[in-house]
Amino acid sequence: MMVSRHKIVPVILAGGTGTRLWPLSRQSLPKQFIALVSENTLYQDTLLRVAESDVFLPPVVITGTDFRFFAKRQAAEIEIHPTVLLEPVRRDSGPALLAAAAYVRDQHGPETLVLALAADHVVSNPDAFRACVNSAAEAASKGHIVTFGIRPQGPSTAYGYIKPGTVVEGTDAALVDRFVEKPDAETAARYVADGYLWNSGNFLFPAGLMLEEGARLEPEMTAHAEAAIAKAKPDLTFLNLDSAEFSASKAISIDFAVLEHTQAAAVVAGDFGWSDIGAWDAVHDVNAQDAHGNVTHGSVSLMDSRNSYVYTDGKLVAGIGLDGISVVATDDAILVMPSERSQDVKKLVSELSSAKRNEVNEHLKMHRPWGTYQTICRGDRFHVKKIVVEPGGKLSLQKHYHRAEHWVVVRGTAEVTVDDKVFTVNENESTYLPCGSVHRLANPGRIPLELIEVQTGSYLGEDDIVRLEDVYSRQ
Amino acid sequence: MMVSRHKIVPVILAGGTGTRLWPLSRQSLPKQFIALVSENTLYQDTLLRVAESDVFLPPVVITGTDFRFFAKRQAAEIEIHPTVLLEPVRRDSGPALLAAAAYVRDQHGPETLVLALAADHVVSNPDAFRACVNSAAEAASKGHIVTFGIRPQGPSTAYGYIKPGTVVEGTDAALVDRFVEKPDAETAARYVADGYLWNSGNFLFPAGLMLEEGARLEPEMTAHAEAAIAKAKPDLTFLNLDSAEFSASKAISIDFAVLEHTQAAAVVAGDFGWSDIGAWDAVHDVNAQDAHGNVTHGSVSLMDSRNSYVYTDGKLVAGIGLDGISVVATDDAILVMPSERSQDVKKLVSELSSAKRNEVNEHLKMHRPWGTYQTICRGDRFHVKKIVVEPGGKLSLQKHYHRAEHWVVVRGTAEVTVDDKVFTVNENESTYLPCGSVHRLANPGRIPLELIEVQTGSYLGEDDIVRLEDVYSRQ
Repeated sequence: MMVSRHKIVPVILAGGTGTRLWPLSRQSLPKQFIALVSENTLYQDTLLRVAESDVFLPPVVITGTDFRFFAKRQAAEIEIHPTVLLEPVRRDSGPALLAAAAYVRDQHGPETLVLALAADHVVSNPDAFRACVNSAAEAASKGHIVTFGIRPQGPSTAYGYIKPGTVVEGTDAALVDRFVEKPDAETAARYVADGYLWNSGNFLFPAGLMLEEGARLEPEMTAHAEAAIAKAKPDLTFLNLDSAEFSASKAISIDFAVLEHTQAAAVVAGDFGWSDIGAWDAVHDVNAQDAHGNVTHGSVSLMDSRNSYVYTDGKLVAGIGLDGISVVATDDAILVMPSERSQDVKKLVSELSSAKRNEVNEHLKMHRPWGTYQTICRGDRFHVKKIVVEPGGKLSLQKHYHRAEHWVVVRGTAEVTVDDKVFTVNENESTYLPCGSVHRLANPGRIPLELIEVQTGSYLGEDDIVRLEDVYSRQ
Repeated sequence: MMVSRHKIVPVILAGGTGTRLWPLSRQSLPKQFIALVSENTLYQDTLLRVAESDVFLPPVVITGTDFRFFAKRQAAEIEIHPTVLLEPVRRDSGPALLAAAAYVRDQHGPETLVLALAADHVVSNPDAFRACVNSAAEAASKGHIVTFGIRPQGPSTAYGYIKPGTVVEGTDAALVDRFVEKPDAETAARYVADGYLWNSGNFLFPAGLMLEEGARLEPEMTAHAEAAIAKAKPDLTFLNLDSAEFSASKAISIDFAVLEHTQAAAVVAGDFGWSDIGAWDAVHDVNAQDAHGNVTHGSVSLMDSRNSYVYTDGKLVAGIGLDGISVVATDDAILVMPSERSQDVKKLVSELSSAKRNEVNEHLKMHRPWGTYQTICRGDRFHVKKIVVEPGGKLSLQKHYHRAEHWVVVRGTAEVTVDDKVFTVNENESTYLPCGSVHRLANPGRIPLELIEVQTGSYLGEDDIVRLEDVYSRQ
């Protein structure tokens, strides 16, 4: 076991809404909260990678309000209980990282090292990763903002590159000679030949140093980020960054704001099986392939196929004669393409978005603080959902103006409030909620409650809801 | 308008269960009953093609018991009311065609011409087709069994070929020099060069002549087929062929049984846009293609794609960079392949069948005489279905030993029988059927009744049903 001489606080940036992995990753459930490579979600694997208590202090997660329950619940599932900072609006990585640095400095002092990690990257060799963190910590503690450079596996045009300069004395790190943007193929080949590294977008730095450099290079943004922490308010178990201050920050990445301009930037070269799984071809690459180079997930039957990636979350996918094809099938959308076109998914999603397709942002299965709901059938004047309420979960006290609801409990026990009555509905029992009634659903039991809800009415939009009271502070 | 000098009875063979168009065509809903090319199903288009009353007598349909309600209902939708003969078991085209010929002879006399058509072929030029029928009728009335030969559009290996011989005097038909099996590519090219025709498997003949030739070449089979008609029993509006007689026939195609051996075989060459749409590439070919050679059906978004076929019956299918790819997406199964692999679907289906996959034979939406039901959600101890009962439809009086049912009416009005009570359940009302109760559902109204059924219990198989009474004579 490695024991660090430094205090390191992992800061997990979990606010992204990646569209390149559509249709699986969407605004309602972005890729960091999906299990794409192991049994765990990428976010969980990231937390586990920095969970060794002799090296790391308890982690800090920074994410958007929409994702706060994912961040808490998925961490709790692996018995990790991070501090969760909530960004009231999205402002790119600069303000987020500076706010997190201010939080760490205020809690643990300015010398404390911050290990800033994207929540949606894959590391296939965690031991090598932690060894690299150790090297970086040596350099950081000598007054550097250290970025993790990846030894290129080829002349990729999907990453920015870093040119290492002179070695930081007594460490494995080098000063950064320069950062360069994503290159074209020819330039990329030259970079690789010249020993440039991929820029992974993960950093290690003393909290105070980052804030000093921020204050010098982007004084306004840094002042807003620090004030957003100073004025932050706890809400349930979250810490809400101050909305006015954080919103006033400009939206800019930490690379543009600080890294590319500071003299303190250093880089350590890592070889720890890193991938940002930025697109479907990368997901194919990081998963174990069968003898024909195929990777499948779910109910898949391939005949005479090779080098293909097939993901399905339910329906059978059958392929014949596929070569280098990616197929991703979800409940409501299916993507088919040659894997080499993976970078074009972003463009496709933006086209679908212009066409105002629901499938772009929303999943049929929606996650809520109390559990999940999923549309299973929709008709002209009705809508059928499967609702799962976790033990102890409690929906808001609510009413609808335009719809009545039938609830049939198929598993577990429901505590139902209708107007001034509270009663229990057991498995294989049902109840009816007339239009306009004030009602609440809760699971008082020890196993998940599953029920089928049949809504009927002339208007069935999610916005026909008046929340009178909510234990999760939702409006 | 063409007025025929002959009495022609169209006989539609609608008993096939094509697997090459899986996952759309399955045993529970084979391709003739699906709309693949126009708004109508292939079966409906076949009926409409021979509906001109100055030329054709009312049609006769021969199909399996499983498909009887499709055959009636789809014909009624286009206001055609055929006689429907039901095969108690499948015995290939020989016994079916001989039985139909016996039926036509008994009804209209031995000189009556039978136009035997597969229910699942496409004809894009019906006028040319009817002109060809006229030519064939001339030859048939001179004592020939006339087969429709198709002028090859290329050296296909998917069809048998016919070599035309000497002309039948005073007609456009030729005697058949020989029939040949599906050839290899080289042989096919030679056949095309030598003026051979594709064998379409559609025929025109005097009813009596076919039975005479059958009696001479396959006396036992022909005797059983004739007896199956002589002993046939009406049931509702169907005519059930005698089970013992029909089952005793050997299973053999009319080609093998009669056509390839009789001296009476003749052929007319046709150019009427024929396709047997035997595989997905053929479905692509017969549909109108866009400027990039794509054919799409349903909610499809293609970017930078060409020469591809995409069919979806609900979910969005998005494709990027597809070229010559077929994608067929149904509720529970998705097929992806290069279109040129279309012939291999049969092999895939047989592999899936060995693996005992439900998706091979059953659709999620099942058709019944009274309407349809569709699984919309399935869990450990529950099963949710959407049930549609057509006006006047009535399910059997039934009970279940292992499950209770909740019914929520979302459209129309239900007449519900539970034990000795009969009552009405209106839109937005629900009722409960305890385990073991004797119950029946009916739609007494004028619009379709739609309801959501939530079944709960320890065993939810379709075979937990005791039918006490059924207006559709089901067991």
